[in-house]
Amino acid sequence: MLGLMQSWPLTVDKILDHAARWHGHREIVTRSVEGPIVRGTYAECHDRAKRVSSALKGWGVKLGDRVATLAWNTQRHMEAWYGIMGIGAVCHTLNPRLFPEQIAWIINHAEDRIIFVDLTFVGVLEQILPKCPTVERVVVMTDAWNMPQTTLPRAECYEQVVAESSNVCEWGGFSEETACGLCYTSGTTGDPKGVMYSHRSNFLHTLVGLQADVLATSVRDTILPVVPMFHANAWGVAFAAPAVGAKLVLPGAKMDGQSIYELLSTERVTTSAAVPTVWQMLLTHLQSHGLKLPDLERVTIGGAACPETIIRAFHDDYGVDVFHAWGMTETSPLGTTGSLTPEVSSQPFDQQVPYRLKQGRPPIGIELKLTDDEGNILPHDGKTFGHLMVRGSFVAGSYFKGAGGNILDKQGFFDTGDIATIDPIGYMQITDRAKDVVKSGGEWISTIDIENIALGHPAAEQTAVIGVPHPKWDERPILIVKLKEGETATRQDFLDFLQGKIAKWWMPDDVVFVDDIPLGATGKIDKKVLRARLKDYRLPSASPEPA
Amino acid sequence: MLGLMQSWPLTVDKILDHAARWHGHREIVTRSVEGPIVRGTYAECHDRAKRVSSALKGWGVKLGDRVATLAWNTQRHMEAWYGIMGIGAVCHTLNPRLFPEQIAWIINHAEDRIIFVDLTFVGVLEQILPKCPTVERVVVMTDAWNMPQTTLPRAECYEQVVAESSNVCEWGGFSEETACGLCYTSGTTGDPKGVMYSHRSNFLHTLVGLQADVLATSVRDTILPVVPMFHANAWGVAFAAPAVGAKLVLPGAKMDGQSIYELLSTERVTTSAAVPTVWQMLLTHLQSHGLKLPDLERVTIGGAACPETIIRAFHDDYGVDVFHAWGMTETSPLGTTGSLTPEVSSQPFDQQVPYRLKQGRPPIGIELKLTDDEGNILPHDGKTFGHLMVRGSFVAGSYFKGAGGNILDKQGFFDTGDIATIDPIGYMQITDRAKDVVKSGGEWISTIDIENIALGHPAAEQTAVIGVPHPKWDERPILIVKLKEGETATRQDFLDFLQGKIAKWWMPDDVVFVDDIPLGATGKIDKKVLRARLKDYRLPSASPEPA
Repeated sequence: MLGLMQSWPLTVDKILDHAARWHGHREIVTRSVEGPIVRGTYAECHDRAKRVSSALKGWGVKLGDRVATLAWNTQRHMEAWYGIMGIGAVCHTLNPRLFPEQIAWIINHAEDRIIFVDLTFVGVLEQILPKCPTVERVVVMTDAWNMPQTTLPRAECYEQVVAESSNVCEWGGFSEETACGLCYTSGTTGDPKGVMYSHRSNFLHTLVGLQADVLATSVRDTILPVVPMFHANAWGVAFAAPAVGAKLVLPGAKMDGQSIYELLSTERVTTSAAVPTVWQMLLTHLQSHGLKLPDLERVTIGGAACPETIIRAFHDDYGVDVFHAWGMTETSPLGTTGSLTPEVSSQPFDQQVPYRLKQGRPPIGIELKLTDDEGNILPHDGKTFGHLMVRGSFVAGSYFKGAGGNILDKQGFFDTGDIATIDPIGYMQITDRAKDVVKSGGEWISTIDIENIALGHPAAEQTAVIGVPHPKWDERPILIVKLKEGETATRQDFLDFLQGKIAKWWMPDDVVFVDDIPLGATGKIDKKVLRARLKDYRLPSASPEPA
Repeated sequence: MLGLMQSWPLTVDKILDHAARWHGHREIVTRSVEGPIVRGTYAECHDRAKRVSSALKGWGVKLGDRVATLAWNTQRHMEAWYGIMGIGAVCHTLNPRLFPEQIAWIINHAEDRIIFVDLTFVGVLEQILPKCPTVERVVVMTDAWNMPQTTLPRAECYEQVVAESSNVCEWGGFSEETACGLCYTSGTTGDPKGVMYSHRSNFLHTLVGLQADVLATSVRDTILPVVPMFHANAWGVAFAAPAVGAKLVLPGAKMDGQSIYELLSTERVTTSAAVPTVWQMLLTHLQSHGLKLPDLERVTIGGAACPETIIRAFHDDYGVDVFHAWGMTETSPLGTTGSLTPEVSSQPFDQQVPYRLKQGRPPIGIELKLTDDEGNILPHDGKTFGHLMVRGSFVAGSYFKGAGGNILDKQGFFDTGDIATIDPIGYMQITDRAKDVVKSGGEWISTIDIENIALGHPAAEQTAVIGVPHPKWDERPILIVKLKEGETATRQDFLDFLQGKIAKWWMPDDVVFVDDIPLGATGKIDKKVLRARLKDYRLPSASPEPA
């Protein structure tokens, strides 16, 4: 027997429809790529998104066709998104921080037909498009005055397209399972892989994210997503803000401390979302200029573990609540958030900090489990390391074109590739990447923990830990250090520094000093390269000891 | 092209699974029907709900079978709910406030196979069950000690059933469109009609309700739903609380001011939901005993318009935020909520009151429109009266067994039967029922507005307004008054009292004094009966005037 409720497919065009109808006058403020700060509204954004849809239909774009964007967070980017998604085409957000040849590979793999591009990236496209045969047209997101001379074939001026297209164009009317967005993971192993969001998954992710215990976005908020729309939908903000009618402030190309401060301050932003480096730049700017942010209430930090100093500085000096969120492209991305349970919130701030440093708890809609190498469930004791597995309605089931084959376990859980603990209150903490964790005598050692502690040594500029083979323990950790310019330190200095801060059996067997620690395209340490560089390294502890 | 996210059906068993796994130790506190206050947890509730499922399966209950409850808000009722829904049977919540013959009619129409009943209602069932041939078994929700002697055939003792059944029983595994809950509307016109919720509609309603701008329920909340689970799922609280792990306080059979105060106070309740009469009883109790409620932060009021005095008293004397919510059985029920927009929240409290008195704004997931009699869209000017039409994923598409035929307009909107206005900020206000509104000279007059204002006259105990035929204006309003005992007043007294408080053309053409104003089963004025009683009444203004 079926229920008898209305059929109302969860398609994301309804989100911008809702914003235009019930919050039409609410502002969208953008630091434009051309320079000036410009102001629009949801009603205007909706009208212009409809024009984008009309133009796309005029160019023959059909249900399921991929239309890409290579762009910062701006109102025009929002318009292009909803214009693409509203007619059932797939909005493919390209990550401009990748190397040009990676971008070209991804465009070809996705078979993008049209690309919306910001002025910043016209040069990149000019360089790679000759190698991208599926791309028929490029829309430069600017006005006629700022339209550059370009070697791009069939380059359109966005404002001219919008002006010349009809604002009457039907949205929706297709299944909620229809593909909606495409985002490639950075691909530290093998080629990049495409995560294909559906309208349903994006809509459900939006509803879950709006919960009081998740991002808690309200119509009374002014929200500034520093996290880019090309990073898993700006953590959902591009959907969540219009869904509740929050005022939206978009930073365009400028994410330095001063630029972000200026928007936070003049637009009276109440909440924001960004990676730790952005918050560190903002803090430095605030501190060195003696500035305050009286309207800012809470910020969400994700993408990497947030240092304790940032959480404390925001709390103590600025009265801002910092919440961790964890997720990945494959989880849309919200997997856990660090909102406080009553057990934690009833404690003084100092006792809250250990929980605030963790990645948080899963909301309804996300199932998490910790497993050992054989798939057995591990306890939530806050100590046991396990593979973090995730299941839910907005978690990837497979990659585009079947890349990577089956990615789910027998129970349908996706392997995040992360190693984590879960404590008895339910807070999850990422301890390592599965491919990086050191397995010593059957126990797992977190390279991230040791790296972060070693980085506290005053002479260290960068630190990394990798496992190297050991005849007795299978693997043992070694610490790799790049010293700050002009500093000196010895192996023993670092071992002494770690003494008492980590378990004895976690103590690295050696310290190796290097001139350079290799980073990947997204700024994280590339341990694959590091391991390759050290492939001839032999542990002193692994050599037969002198009799 | 389809998205490639996981298939994860939205079935409500996942909600209690989530609560047990991530908030297993959080409390459920119940004022038991037997008397004492008893304490349980989500983990225990989950374990016992599984046992209910095992028992139902043992009794041959299959997917789609209707299993009824006739019960107050208690942990056992929650267990029965999830136990029924988890195996894909339909949880049919019977309203004990209906007349016994109505309950019997509804049981027969639903073809209920099993009924879970509280001690309070065993007598009612004994009286009607001989007329209900589909009912095979009754489970009395008590323990062996309190099990009554009963003439009910095949009466089971709940605690014995739970103790003897296995806590291992598979939940879910069926389509999210599967029927989940059945709730009959009170049926002021014609027979009662069944609204058949699906797992999907209840799950989506839960997510929408958890938004910061709707009910904003958090893990840090302690929530007391006074509104019964047989009234459209306790406005969703029976799903929302476990979905976030909020502590749940259930009032059982006692909803008087003192009993509710006791639970609010000792359990440190932060939020609650009830109809205005409950809040009025609580206020009276607080005021007459000089009590405070330091933990209570916000209350949701629905089911009827909330008088300004209640909103002001809660705010001024108790620091509690009162929010209106509007909905009906057919909307699951949340249709609108009165959370404040920045335009309203930035004003002083006195200026907020007119908005707080309205029924509120629709969240994402609900579409509203106002139409005239021909279905044309009317403006959101806060003045124009129109039919309130609603569409969304948790709005009824048809009634059980096709009762009432097609209930949607051509665009798929459900006609609420309410007349409303919507103001430019988006706040909706119910002005009347469509069958009660007075249509005078092509314009609509709100009988509710006039009734409420006239009720402010110190001599009035009850007031009602109905339309009566008029040769020139089609209809004109008359005011019907029941005076307080010992009070006297004239027609002119009431007309003078209304003068200046309503538009001139709204002024009733006559005032009729009566001994009794008829009420329906749910306590609302039965205007159908009132109109029948006054069918021979002739307007003085409709008679030919003396020359």
